[in-house]
Amino acid sequence: MDFDALFNAQLDQLKADGNYRYFAELERQCGKFPRAANHAADGAVRDVTVWCSNDYLGMGQHPAVIGAMCEAVQRTGTGSGGTRNISGTNHDHLLLERELADLHGKQSALLFTSGYVSNWAALSTLGSRLENCVILSDAGNHASMIEGIRHSRAQKVIWKHNDYHDLEMKLRALPADVPKIVAFESVYSMDGDIAPIRQIVEVCEKYGAMTYLDEVHAVGMYGPRGGGVSEREGLADRITLIEGTLGKAYGVVGGYITGSAALCDFIRSFASGFIFTTALPPAIAAAARASIAYLKESQMERARQRRQVARLRAALDRAGIPHMLNDSHIVPVLIKDPVKTRMLADYLMREWDIYVQPINYPTVPKGTERLRFTPSPLHSDEDIDHLVTALRVLWKQCALAHAVA
Amino acid sequence: MDFDALFNAQLDQLKADGNYRYFAELERQCGKFPRAANHAADGAVRDVTVWCSNDYLGMGQHPAVIGAMCEAVQRTGTGSGGTRNISGTNHDHLLLERELADLHGKQSALLFTSGYVSNWAALSTLGSRLENCVILSDAGNHASMIEGIRHSRAQKVIWKHNDYHDLEMKLRALPADVPKIVAFESVYSMDGDIAPIRQIVEVCEKYGAMTYLDEVHAVGMYGPRGGGVSEREGLADRITLIEGTLGKAYGVVGGYITGSAALCDFIRSFASGFIFTTALPPAIAAAARASIAYLKESQMERARQRRQVARLRAALDRAGIPHMLNDSHIVPVLIKDPVKTRMLADYLMREWDIYVQPINYPTVPKGTERLRFTPSPLHSDEDIDHLVTALRVLWKQCALAHAVA
Ligand SMILES: Cc1ncc(COP(=O)(O)O)c(C=O)c1O
Ligand SMILES: Cc1ncc(COP(=O)(O)O)c(C=O)c1O
Repeated sequence: MDFDALFNAQLDQLKADGNYRYFAELERQCGKFPRAANHAADGAVRDVTVWCSNDYLGMGQHPAVIGAMCEAVQRTGTGSGGTRNISGTNHDHLLLERELADLHGKQSALLFTSGYVSNWAALSTLGSRLENCVILSDAGNHASMIEGIRHSRAQKVIWKHNDYHDLEMKLRALPADVPKIVAFESVYSMDGDIAPIRQIVEVCEKYGAMTYLDEVHAVGMYGPRGGGVSEREGLADRITLIEGTLGKAYGVVGGYITGSAALCDFIRSFASGFIFTTALPPAIAAAARASIAYLKESQMERARQRRQVARLRAALDRAGIPHMLNDSHIVPVLIKDPVKTRMLADYLMREWDIYVQPINYPTVPKGTERLRFTPSPLHSDEDIDHLVTALRVLWKQCALAHAVA
Repeated sequence: MDFDALFNAQLDQLKADGNYRYFAELERQCGKFPRAANHAADGAVRDVTVWCSNDYLGMGQHPAVIGAMCEAVQRTGTGSGGTRNISGTNHDHLLLERELADLHGKQSALLFTSGYVSNWAALSTLGSRLENCVILSDAGNHASMIEGIRHSRAQKVIWKHNDYHDLEMKLRALPADVPKIVAFESVYSMDGDIAPIRQIVEVCEKYGAMTYLDEVHAVGMYGPRGGGVSEREGLADRITLIEGTLGKAYGVVGGYITGSAALCDFIRSFASGFIFTTALPPAIAAAARASIAYLKESQMERARQRRQVARLRAALDRAGIPHMLNDSHIVPVLIKDPVKTRMLADYLMREWDIYVQPINYPTVPKGTERLRFTPSPLHSDEDIDHLVTALRVLWKQCALAHAVA
């Protein structure tokens, strides 16, 4: 059987739809963020300004984080050497788990190789091991949660995005005695909208449902210690499980859950995706811990991020470039067509040394393709002016401008 | 609803069965492997000899690997800053992917956050996107493959472990025109046995099946360049997809697949577990590449590992301690009871400063609990003598000895 032909047929379809993905090849250059070298397809290498990084606060190049990582590599080596059970648990992992539990005010935390794996493993384990469990999932939830729920084979009920009335209706329709898990995010990464956490929590408490909150795009950035939107709103203690990543605002890699000691021990003991995989290098744990500890104290990065986000929005408004309104640090500009979005992004890269990845299906629904800007504390006012000038010129040039406006 | 009570009930059951897991808390100490500091439950910290690490060749503390990682941290920072599609692809990732493709003599390679994720994502994508696909899975396959197959919801056929006659019977029973994927491992990590790859490949070729080979416990250690058992046997070019890890013999973390350009592009384009997760830090990629490049050249570590494995086996034989025979570097000693296995391991740690994790369900089937020793090139002859002396004393002391012998 000609498998390559089967693969190519599906890839050709992607290309025909304009959904085939070309990855930009970057070289991050420590100390220069948001600047990075870009290797173009023709081999040329040029510095560009990265406008779509999820290293939201630039912590990936912070001296405290880099220092902690190098120190730990020198001290412990490059890997953990095993799964958590079989020689892979290091002192640095436990220190990080303690730091994470403290960050969210929970009894315990559990580290995973990524945020994706933490969602997938936790939800698939809860859904499959709690008898008759029903998982109520926000319609906008991330792929990692969707796949975890699917894998659990538990009954799944989808409620309208951020709509706690709809959630309540769906909770009310379920028998009182089945375990219910309500899964949702605080900051939705593609639209940048924030969930009405208080109302959701209240509904869940009324129906005895467990709350499962993904704070991946909020940890480090919201709350006085970076504990996420749930910290900012003073709601963390009313949420059963808070999940997060170490790969975005914290600038490293890895994921985690926090919750009661029993909950974390349960996932630790039964989750295939936690058990059967090499633990993260101790040096990754040390770097993440340094980043979390730093952002527990420092307000500067968060304040400056908010300032630059506001500045970018105001400049876009003045330039007449429509962007989605939200209360987060994410600035999406809808284009609504995959081919046009790529054209714009290519043009920005080629003519303006601006890198923003075109966002297409399956990351966003078809017809909602976009450019998604993430201003960091390290984007200067000049960077913002440069970006908005480029966009203004583009919007004028393209016939597209009118369609979008 | 009292969720903690639900969790605790299942945890209590684990404890009653003797299957509850206690992780040893280690501090890896660069330059001292296989020695590490162990933090006991009572807070005492003591150096122990690690006998169950999957840092099989000690590459996690090799100066070339440590140097590459620190250099890259200083150069690029601590994280990748995004998913592969959205600003997360770095030059170091591509260099590593090229190195991996070369290692296995394939057109392409694709990097994942772990070997677990590479298996899960690749198999679930192949199984769900190839219409009417049937996956034929060796009965001994690793959890990550099992979960990937399960997630794909493709038809699954289990064939008897390492039994190519049974595989052939099962292939023959399937319609000629459905896509078939035969998934298996080269070195099975818990028994240490090696698959009859040639015969399996021949059967697959006869029936037009795609071969999916997990070389996680072989890469770096088998074949003149560390390309795994498939390289040693000269069979790599006849295998459709070779999967491996960067977290075991290579001493870092991460996983990958290699195969045709179309195959890798297909997984890259459709696999949720590849798309929706932060890319590994460039520094991890750089460290892994240094380790692979080193082990492509150096034979010393492999030769010395084989010597120490043979030495341990011979010493166990002389001491009358039964161990499972196999052709790999893994030396399992069956105890067949979870409580006894833990007792033995606790005793070795407490009285002899020897750390070997008791291996229990679900890592191995119930009733096959074991101690699993992995001699590395860095275990000295004295380490081996010390271990075997300890075991001999134990075997004499315990009534268990007779039951096991
Ligand atoms: C909402 C959400 N949850 C989880 C993840 C996965 O986290 P990680 O990148 O650490 O795998 C992502 C994105 O990557 C995300 O957007
Ligand atoms: C056969 C096999 N495949 C895959 C994996 C997963 O690899 P990783 O540890 O890189 O996640 C493991 C063990 O961890 C394994 O034993």
